[in-house]
Amino acid sequence: MKVALLGCGTVGTEVVRLLHEQAGDLAARIGAPLELAGVAVRRPNRHPGVPAALLTTDAGALVDRPDVDVVVEVIGGLEPARTLLLSAMKAGKSVVTANKALLAEDGATLHAAARDAGVDLYFEASVAGAIPLLRPLRESLAGDRITRVVGIVNGTTNFVLSRMDSTGAGFAEALAEATALGYAEADPTADVDGFDAAAKAAILAGLAFHTRVTAADVHREGIAAVTAADVASARAMGCTVKLLAICDRDPADGSVGARVHPAMIPRTHPLASVGDAFNAVYVEAEAAGQLMFYGRGAGGAPTASAVLGDLVAVARNRLTGARGAGESAYADLRVRPVGETPTRYHISLDVADKPGVLAAVAQAFAAHEVSISTVRQAGRGDDATLVLVTHVAPDAALAATVEDLRRLPVVREVASVMRVESA
Amino acid sequence: MKVALLGCGTVGTEVVRLLHEQAGDLAARIGAPLELAGVAVRRPNRHPGVPAALLTTDAGALVDRPDVDVVVEVIGGLEPARTLLLSAMKAGKSVVTANKALLAEDGATLHAAARDAGVDLYFEASVAGAIPLLRPLRESLAGDRITRVVGIVNGTTNFVLSRMDSTGAGFAEALAEATALGYAEADPTADVDGFDAAAKAAILAGLAFHTRVTAADVHREGIAAVTAADVASARAMGCTVKLLAICDRDPADGSVGARVHPAMIPRTHPLASVGDAFNAVYVEAEAAGQLMFYGRGAGGAPTASAVLGDLVAVARNRLTGARGAGESAYADLRVRPVGETPTRYHISLDVADKPGVLAAVAQAFAAHEVSISTVRQAGRGDDATLVLVTHVAPDAALAATVEDLRRLPVVREVASVMRVESA
Repeated sequence: MKVALLGCGTVGTEVVRLLHEQAGDLAARIGAPLELAGVAVRRPNRHPGVPAALLTTDAGALVDRPDVDVVVEVIGGLEPARTLLLSAMKAGKSVVTANKALLAEDGATLHAAARDAGVDLYFEASVAGAIPLLRPLRESLAGDRITRVVGIVNGTTNFVLSRMDSTGAGFAEALAEATALGYAEADPTADVDGFDAAAKAAILAGLAFHTRVTAADVHREGIAAVTAADVASARAMGCTVKLLAICDRDPADGSVGARVHPAMIPRTHPLASVGDAFNAVYVEAEAAGQLMFYGRGAGGAPTASAVLGDLVAVARNRLTGARGAGESAYADLRVRPVGETPTRYHISLDVADKPGVLAAVAQAFAAHEVSISTVRQAGRGDDATLVLVTHVAPDAALAATVEDLRRLPVVREVASVMRVESA
Repeated sequence: MKVALLGCGTVGTEVVRLLHEQAGDLAARIGAPLELAGVAVRRPNRHPGVPAALLTTDAGALVDRPDVDVVVEVIGGLEPARTLLLSAMKAGKSVVTANKALLAEDGATLHAAARDAGVDLYFEASVAGAIPLLRPLRESLAGDRITRVVGIVNGTTNFVLSRMDSTGAGFAEALAEATALGYAEADPTADVDGFDAAAKAAILAGLAFHTRVTAADVHREGIAAVTAADVASARAMGCTVKLLAICDRDPADGSVGARVHPAMIPRTHPLASVGDAFNAVYVEAEAAGQLMFYGRGAGGAPTASAVLGDLVAVARNRLTGARGAGESAYADLRVRPVGETPTRYHISLDVADKPGVLAAVAQAFAAHEVSISTVRQAGRGDDATLVLVTHVAPDAALAATVEDLRRLPVVREVASVMRVESA
């Protein structure tokens, strides 16, 4: 069974190492030895750990080699990954990929290619690294009805928010620490602005609800606007701030929501104690109840572990002439805009301390039919702060309320707005 | 695709309900409708929720029906379950079972029958109920090397120990509460004495290390001897007491250990916060690092969710002429006796308060080459208590040390002995 590896960065290097070190075990588990046919890289002189004879800069030629059975793609990004994978599948090769961006952007095309060619397309490593998550969602829970998936699926932002929570640091300071420690990339945009988490949310929602969800369907807010004051405010109400990927299915109309944004969650929530660069995904299903999966969501070896697991499955399938489960998108559900999504807001206002302020503020909420759960007034005089937590209301009504509050003469500043997730 | 259901208790009833309620989804996910061909029960008049025409008391005849494709077994126990499943597989039917006792006792026979007949034998529901665990171990981590599996896999004992920890109650009182709330059966022996957890440990160790482990290989200690004093002692050192199923592979000699016993774990350990009747399993693998799976380990609906997930997989396999992964026991590793297992002990001694006591006690440890990590003396005079925690040593050396301590004149009583698991 011959494997072509596309890309040899942090993950690819570990894939090569594991293929070599665990060759005997892999062969026993598959029923045939796995052989690395070639490794496509941009700069062959940068990979001293890979036998020179295996290295090539021509990924297309490697994919086209008739002796290659399985193509493993760990390049990332849309192109040339998409073209290479489509070409591989068209030629009858099975594919293992860790490419969340490509799957979230254009999964339908890839799945169709796999179906047309009768080959496997596996992508466990694309979400939450080493955590076995996609296989449980698409197979173990295939007999159940998943209602909600809430995950911490980006290690960089979780590290930043964990540091802000534990040290009181601001966003910039915590991000600088993450960069220094290697938890954030030189350009942290994909992580910090939630693009990475949104791609994963699209993949999770699609699998969980048997429908198609693309990255463009996912409402996305990053963590750059989260302040030390927000984190302190969360702490004061027994909460912590996490960047959550939330996918849910409305049991009433069957619509699906997928969104990524920072949110306050109670410290008693199972996700609250997920610190540093760890990932965790919380799943609710009708019969199974509450489940949680926890582990390392990134890094070379953990991601390579997920790639290898897929590789064993795909190789075993080819050997027995079988095919794993393909795309399951039969439900074809409407993706709900974030404005329709029921949620709760935590709002902190700098206000003038004079009679009638609370009445004016309360009126702004009432005008949008948003009911208030708790109000707390901190400070007095010029420093008066009003902290409000709403009951559940449509996100659009909450957003409109905030807009009105900004215009209210008694409100000096809307100091902080953040969603609150209860459970 | 026709399904025969053997047994219709708590789990079977939920299987029937889910097959009915989710018929459309199941058909879409499998590619063909699942039809319940019959339900074998002992007393047909006790199942008002099942159409009378489906009920039969003749399980053997139901299994033999030529139109049955898949047999689901939720009777439990060794016989008649074994005979029925062997007969089903011999006749070319695939099998889904939740029967941990049978798999742990005689899994080899079942797996051989599945292999010989070329059918599927799936058993996700046999360990940790709804938690997708076996599929991740046998498939997602198939490209990795698992080093350790530590689980809370019995909800009854976890409820009892959680109550003892939170209320200070003794074992009998906490068990009575568990019984009253329906968390413990009228005869709680299988749970309390660790038989249930030991069966699950055998299954987990076999899957994790690709070798055969039976219930008889598992060292088993229950929780009946855990006292309120033990729990208080654990609390004093920042620990809590859990009944753990521990499976590990010695990287040096490749031997495998499987044991079930109460142990003190630090409150910071991911398993420490798993309360009530929840289950959680912590997995360490070379590349993946630390993973944890959490959810409901028992109950009708959660267990039925796992059964249905297997049923979808097995039905899909039959439809496509494929077969899932069979037994993987190629590694054929030695199962290490508990005496050779490196562990740590927490020992609490009632001692005479006079000079030379610590020297005599320390000498007993030294004689077995057990080194002491911490010593704490609580109380004075007649109430003097010496609390010792050892470093890691072979279990046999620790056990022998305890025997010597019991015979030491300065030791009035060995008040408590419990293993300590660090991480």
